[in-house]
Amino acid sequence: MNSGKRDEDRISAVREALVRHRCDALVCAQPRHVLMLSGHWPVVGNAWAVATKDGRVLLIVPEDELEPATTGWADAVYTFRAVSLDRLESALVAVREPLGKALEVAGAETIAYEAEGSLEPSTYVSQFNYGAAGPAVLHDLAPRARLFDADAWLARLRVRKTRAELEHMRTVATVARAAYEQGVAAIRPGLTERDVASAFEAAFESGIPGDARGRAFFYCMSGANAAESNRAYQRTRSRRIERGDVVIVHCNSVIGGFWTDLTRTYVLGKESELVIRLEAIAAARAAAIAHVAPGVEARAVDAAARAVLEAYGFGPEFRTPTGHGVGFAAIDHDELPRLHPISKDVLEAGMTFNIEPGCYRRGLYGMRHGDMIAVAPEGCEVLSPFQTEPAALVI
Amino acid sequence: MNSGKRDEDRISAVREALVRHRCDALVCAQPRHVLMLSGHWPVVGNAWAVATKDGRVLLIVPEDELEPATTGWADAVYTFRAVSLDRLESALVAVREPLGKALEVAGAETIAYEAEGSLEPSTYVSQFNYGAAGPAVLHDLAPRARLFDADAWLARLRVRKTRAELEHMRTVATVARAAYEQGVAAIRPGLTERDVASAFEAAFESGIPGDARGRAFFYCMSGANAAESNRAYQRTRSRRIERGDVVIVHCNSVIGGFWTDLTRTYVLGKESELVIRLEAIAAARAAAIAHVAPGVEARAVDAAARAVLEAYGFGPEFRTPTGHGVGFAAIDHDELPRLHPISKDVLEAGMTFNIEPGCYRRGLYGMRHGDMIAVAPEGCEVLSPFQTEPAALVI
Repeated sequence: MNSGKRDEDRISAVREALVRHRCDALVCAQPRHVLMLSGHWPVVGNAWAVATKDGRVLLIVPEDELEPATTGWADAVYTFRAVSLDRLESALVAVREPLGKALEVAGAETIAYEAEGSLEPSTYVSQFNYGAAGPAVLHDLAPRARLFDADAWLARLRVRKTRAELEHMRTVATVARAAYEQGVAAIRPGLTERDVASAFEAAFESGIPGDARGRAFFYCMSGANAAESNRAYQRTRSRRIERGDVVIVHCNSVIGGFWTDLTRTYVLGKESELVIRLEAIAAARAAAIAHVAPGVEARAVDAAARAVLEAYGFGPEFRTPTGHGVGFAAIDHDELPRLHPISKDVLEAGMTFNIEPGCYRRGLYGMRHGDMIAVAPEGCEVLSPFQTEPAALVI
Repeated sequence: MNSGKRDEDRISAVREALVRHRCDALVCAQPRHVLMLSGHWPVVGNAWAVATKDGRVLLIVPEDELEPATTGWADAVYTFRAVSLDRLESALVAVREPLGKALEVAGAETIAYEAEGSLEPSTYVSQFNYGAAGPAVLHDLAPRARLFDADAWLARLRVRKTRAELEHMRTVATVARAAYEQGVAAIRPGLTERDVASAFEAAFESGIPGDARGRAFFYCMSGANAAESNRAYQRTRSRRIERGDVVIVHCNSVIGGFWTDLTRTYVLGKESELVIRLEAIAAARAAAIAHVAPGVEARAVDAAARAVLEAYGFGPEFRTPTGHGVGFAAIDHDELPRLHPISKDVLEAGMTFNIEPGCYRRGLYGMRHGDMIAVAPEGCEVLSPFQTEPAALVI
């Protein structure tokens, strides 16, 4: 079953974490964790991965996910049948037998698991969550094992990407770049925000390599609607684009389980108050990026961007943190590292995050430039080096 | 805050359930349940709804969801701030104060809550799940209250739609219908499955009325790929459509929190072995629909469809149940009522589900016709009456 290429860096990192936390096994059902532990990106969300201290990886998947599961590196795959004509039982019931078997094979006396809430990216039209039933079924199937809350160290495990994972992130960022370069032609007066979002999504979809699993969520917000794009969620409306507008195009997209979080803001025309903000945001972005290197405090990167916008007189308009971790997560402000004024996170090589300085003025406009960055052994790599100069953003 | 129109039918149904189960309050965080209890369709998934035995509805939402929350009928809305520049805390921490306040106002001694797993439709690019932390925070904030598992009766509450909810389902089904009628022009030799799915999604997106929140997940599977469409998940690939192909277009789409689950299968050409199956499936669909009425056993509807396909000699190719509940759910085979050979569910007026007979032959073809049905006081209403005749499906 282990036809996928083993990510030895990841396998080592997980083993080290298990040893450090004195646990025999890590047992996860959140799709991003199943992906991280096994290389299998679950579809429906009811798969489990078990990683043991001695480096074994066991996967429990619905029968129908057996084919995608072969792209991972599990040493053994156990299946259950989610839908059949002769039985009528939920995944929660059907998963018990193979999960119990895997836990028995793992032979763990101490099990670390996901105890808290999660902001899980949407990988499919619906996603299964075990909810409170997750720990309950583990208690039940491994009654003699002691269970430990692994959330804090799972967050630490997610933050540094391996070489293979970085390669996945370059792939999805490259396809997103092509979607921006192609989609920009759809931004013109008379078209609606929905038209623009659809055009970018179609461009991304057509760029997904081969039969890889992927999807894009593009959101377009124009004019005064863009002023609300600093909110916790993005939203496309029916508004028609006009001359003089700002048009924000925000992109969360995924290929193979690795996510982008990108934004570009276009200005239709040469409105001076908008173009000067494009320039200020570009300068803030450059200052932030210039600070990125291993050992740097994440809040120093935030401060660098903030200082530039303050110098331009736009400090009060920059109402969000500068960035947050991206990759296994799409839009999670809590994902490490947090580029936030009071963050205590310190950058390390392999960390990936976005840098998204912006200006927001309620009722008037919203503007943001969001790039994805990987911390390199020295300095950083910009994963989304396109439409960087203000001139490229004026239509 | 209660600017939205109250759904008195729903409020009564929830009160009756609370009285019947001797609970003072129902406390939910799964988005479909927050929608059902309060009329607010959460965006990010970290909102809570509290419904009390005396008919009050309290809503706890992130500040940024205050505007969409006004479309609901909550008597009071409590907010928390998920992201800010002066604090760095997760939703799990930030929600405690307003949730605690709402629980205090509710004054419940017995609380029913979601204890089990759920297959939650994807309403946004990422969705928050409280997971095991959900019940933990309730225990913590209402230490003297007794907690009861409400999953079984929440499933019963979801199954009968109110008049207002049925109206929402008609809306989303109508927009999906227009997307099919427009999208079908994109099905032609040389285009890829990705092209087709994108065209249908763009058509749906452009049909969303006004600024309503909505999204479509269309999946296109052609030729031998279609043979796998009976699996637990749908998947669009890069395959180019050819003359003689079957092309399945599957649609889960949502407006305002109410979902469609629809499928059409097109045949490119007049391949007799495919067209005869289109006819058999249409006959199976008609037989199933003719059986739908209050008081009928759900398995009798399944049996009616199955008998037709068996009479045609295609019984072994019909490898799925005939249907399952739809509306708050998009693709959940466990959603009531289950039109399954061993189901004990009985149809009642207001129930909504799909009827999706099909023929699947591994490596060769897959075909399915999926409609959405509401049980009427007498007989039934087909919510998706389009492209019904085989002639409309031959291109």
